[in-house]
Amino acid sequence: MQSFELLSQKFAFHFDKAHFPEAPSTLYQPNEYFLKLGGKRVRPVLCLMGNELFDDIREDAWELATAVELFHNFTLIHDDIMDKAPLRRGMQTVHTKYGENTALLAGDVMLVKAYEYLSRIDGDFLKPILHLFNQTAREVCEGQQWDMDYEKQETVHLDEYLRMIELKTSVLLAASLKMGAILGGSGERNQNLLYEFGRKLGIAFQVQDDYLDAFGDPEKFGKQVGGDILANKKTFLLIHALETANAGQLEELKQLIAGNPPDKVEQVLRIFKDCKVDEWAIELKNKYLDEAFQHLDDIAVLSKRKQPLTDLARFLVQREH
Amino acid sequence: MQSFELLSQKFAFHFDKAHFPEAPSTLYQPNEYFLKLGGKRVRPVLCLMGNELFDDIREDAWELATAVELFHNFTLIHDDIMDKAPLRRGMQTVHTKYGENTALLAGDVMLVKAYEYLSRIDGDFLKPILHLFNQTAREVCEGQQWDMDYEKQETVHLDEYLRMIELKTSVLLAASLKMGAILGGSGERNQNLLYEFGRKLGIAFQVQDDYLDAFGDPEKFGKQVGGDILANKKTFLLIHALETANAGQLEELKQLIAGNPPDKVEQVLRIFKDCKVDEWAIELKNKYLDEAFQHLDDIAVLSKRKQPLTDLARFLVQREH
Repeated sequence: MQSFELLSQKFAFHFDKAHFPEAPSTLYQPNEYFLKLGGKRVRPVLCLMGNELFDDIREDAWELATAVELFHNFTLIHDDIMDKAPLRRGMQTVHTKYGENTALLAGDVMLVKAYEYLSRIDGDFLKPILHLFNQTAREVCEGQQWDMDYEKQETVHLDEYLRMIELKTSVLLAASLKMGAILGGSGERNQNLLYEFGRKLGIAFQVQDDYLDAFGDPEKFGKQVGGDILANKKTFLLIHALETANAGQLEELKQLIAGNPPDKVEQVLRIFKDCKVDEWAIELKNKYLDEAFQHLDDIAVLSKRKQPLTDLARFLVQREH
Repeated sequence: MQSFELLSQKFAFHFDKAHFPEAPSTLYQPNEYFLKLGGKRVRPVLCLMGNELFDDIREDAWELATAVELFHNFTLIHDDIMDKAPLRRGMQTVHTKYGENTALLAGDVMLVKAYEYLSRIDGDFLKPILHLFNQTAREVCEGQQWDMDYEKQETVHLDEYLRMIELKTSVLLAASLKMGAILGGSGERNQNLLYEFGRKLGIAFQVQDDYLDAFGDPEKFGKQVGGDILANKKTFLLIHALETANAGQLEELKQLIAGNPPDKVEQVLRIFKDCKVDEWAIELKNKYLDEAFQHLDDIAVLSKRKQPLTDLARFLVQREH
């Protein structure tokens, strides 16, 4: 069993090369630029770990992992256009650097390239993996659409937000693991348990992400605390606060959202704390994390094979009491 | 052997239904709207004809044909964004009606849906078809990029324009036929001959399209003659004129391109005729059409099986002397 760090290094060795032809450079150079911006490469490593949970890593697992990482980068390039994001990882986004038309087409061809890597999977496994990949890709698009829709909506219910997060973030983590498991020759029951592990881990991760944006230690968190609050972003925290605040708190919260007072972050955080949103979020995160680990426990392989996944989950989502 | 008309009707029977789930309707309704705008459905019928050239049409040929048509519509939705086209087939384009973000994401999910249909192809044929589909999809994106690049370039050589047309238009026609042939159990030699038939037919079609825009009968052509000239579009005609005009004609042509005199179309057409661009274009079209038919002739099946393809080619590209 190999650790996340080791597999991540090995994946980088496979992945860090040119993925596209030289010409037309106006199309392909933007993609190579974007891929060089890096990233944690969590999803491809999940493919490899899903494979290794059941068997030695197969040659074509690296192709699958590459496909998944390219797919993820396709979604980032197009999401950045839709979100009008100027920067990603501190560098210019593709559309900012090269224009929207190029970013649109570069994203398209990044997706096609993902399918090119996918098509190299052994014939026995290609069909079920392609099926899951397609379903997941469609769900990720749906998640992005719900996200854009919810931005325009005044009220979003917790279950709607949860489903959006699931589609936009969780299903790709879950599918990465499951596609790896398919390549590992796993049976369907184990595949599905692993999928559920990934799905719930993804939700726990997002709850934590929302939590840290409001309550995180700025030094550890690495970005400005309260960014979501300033942007009126609908998060687990804000949605729960709006659903549980009393009449006075609700009025105050709505005024804070409508206006932009200089102490907006402090004021909103105070209401969050009064509503015990912070405690609720930690409980919610722990609930999903516990459920994720339960699914992992239920998978019928020796626990020592599961160790890297356990470690990774604990690294991504810290258990808090 | 079934005619284009019959196969087109049968394809419409399969295709004219909802291809997407109900929700999120903000994402899927735009796609259903666009698909209802119709079209000649040439590419899916080419898949069916490619299959039927070698065997009875298989069940999964309809899935392949649907995938190809959805892929084609994906390219139209995204090209319309890039070209800032307000209308298609006389109706609002997706980005005009629903906004650019929705059109971007709707196009993405249309492409994913194409792969969903593709994944239903029988396991024996899935891998080679997916391989060709991916290669073609990438080439079509490259063609669109060259097209955008050439718009900004002052001079484009004929061989560059030809390659762009090949990528943007021909390879999908060619691949549609070849993917059908793969499903029909055809050998590689016949597959490749059929691909070349489609590739050259596509070029002949584009030469004709450029020709008709300048020299076509407005009544028969169905759109304003000279549109390409007014838009300074680089076409087979303009590129050849710029390459063959004498010094005086060249100077005049460049001034007409730079300016927009009221009689621009007439003036440019006069130079085209003086340079015999019209005769040259007809010869070029006939050359590609003849070569296309030579490839079709060389395919080792009974000629009566080829009849629908011959008819379709003659319908799409009229031989002129």
